[in-house]
Amino acid sequence: MEIVVLRLHHRITRDKRMSSHLALVARAFGASKIVYSGEYDNRIEQTVAQIVESWGGNFNVEYTQNERQYIKEWKREGGVVVHLTMFGIEIDDVIDDLRKVEKDVLVIVGGAKVEIEFYHLADFNIAIGHQPHSEVAALAICLDKITGGKGRKKRYSNARVEIEPCKKGKKVIDKRRKE
Amino acid sequence: MEIVVLRLHHRITRDKRMSSHLALVARAFGASKIVYSGEYDNRIEQTVAQIVESWGGNFNVEYTQNERQYIKEWKREGGVVVHLTMFGIEIDDVIDDLRKVEKDVLVIVGGAKVEIEFYHLADFNIAIGHQPHSEVAALAICLDKITGGKGRKKRYSNARVEIEPCKKGKKVIDKRRKE
Repeated sequence: MEIVVLRLHHRITRDKRMSSHLALVARAFGASKIVYSGEYDNRIEQTVAQIVESWGGNFNVEYTQNERQYIKEWKREGGVVVHLTMFGIEIDDVIDDLRKVEKDVLVIVGGAKVEIEFYHLADFNIAIGHQPHSEVAALAICLDKITGGKGRKKRYSNARVEIEPCKKGKKVIDKRRKE
Repeated sequence: MEIVVLRLHHRITRDKRMSSHLALVARAFGASKIVYSGEYDNRIEQTVAQIVESWGGNFNVEYTQNERQYIKEWKREGGVVVHLTMFGIEIDDVIDDLRKVEKDVLVIVGGAKVEIEFYHLADFNIAIGHQPHSEVAALAICLDKITGGKGRKKRYSNARVEIEPCKKGKKVIDKRRKE
C-alpha cells in the first residue's frame, strides 16, 4: 500500500516551515511522497532533499497546479482519498473501514481555506479530534493510525546517519565512516 | 493526572506559528497548560485566548525565564518529566512504564538546540520514531499515547461553538444561540 500526502494551498510568505514540517512528517510516518499546490516554493524540496541525503529513503516532493485533477486521477487509478478536517468523522470511528479498503491512500491536508468541493471529492473526511489544533499534528496521528505505527519504524538501507536510541544523551551512528 | 507541556527556547522571529501550534496541540490533546521559555511573546497567549473563548476549557499559557527551575520544582512536587527527542527511547517501548507511574506529567518539547542537561533532568527521554520530523507531530503522538486517545475527545461545557461530525461538509453548532 502506498501513501501520498497532498498539501493544499501553500503560501510562500506564511507556510514555509509548516509545509516543510508536513513534508518531514509525511516521510517519517511512512508516506512515499508529498505533493503540494498553491505557490511554488523550492525551499520545501531543498529541506527534504537535505534530510533524505543524510537520513535515507527515496521520499519525493512534487508540485501540482491542479490539485482537483490530481485527486480525480488518484481515484481513477483505484486509490482512496482521505481528507483531514476537524469537521469530519473522528478517526477512531472510521480507521477500521479505511484499513479494510486496502488501496493506495491519498491524504489531503488543508491549507488556508479549503473549498467545500474537496469534502465531496474525498472518500473519507476524517477528524483528529474536533478542536482546532495543527495540520502537522493531524497528519502525524492519521499516518500513524493508517500504518499501525509501522510507518515511523521503517529503516533505510541508504541512510548515511542513524540514531541509536538511548536513555540519556545522543548517539548518532555515521554509517559511511564505518564502511 | 495533570499534563503540562514545557516548550523550550521560543524565538519571536522564527517560532511564532510553531509555538502556537504546540500550544493548540497541548490543549486539544489533553494538557491543562503550556509553559514556554526563551523570548517572551504575547502572540502565543493571544492565539490561545481566542481559541479558548470560542472553543471552551480553561487551558493556560505561562512564560518562564528559568526552565531548569521549573523542571526541578515539578519533580520536587512528585511529578514525572518526559523529554521528547529523536535520540530517546521509542515511545512504544516505554509508554507502559510511563503510564504505570500514575503521576502528573511534564512533557518537554525542544526548541532550537536543547542542552544535554535537559536529557539528564528528564525521567524519560522519548522518541516518536528516530527520523527528523516535527515537534508538533511528536507532541501530538506523545499526548495521544499518554491519554490513550481520550485527551482529544474531551468536551467543554463552556464552549461557545462545537462541531457536529459529518461525512461531507461542515456543521458548527453555536451553543450560545441555542440557549
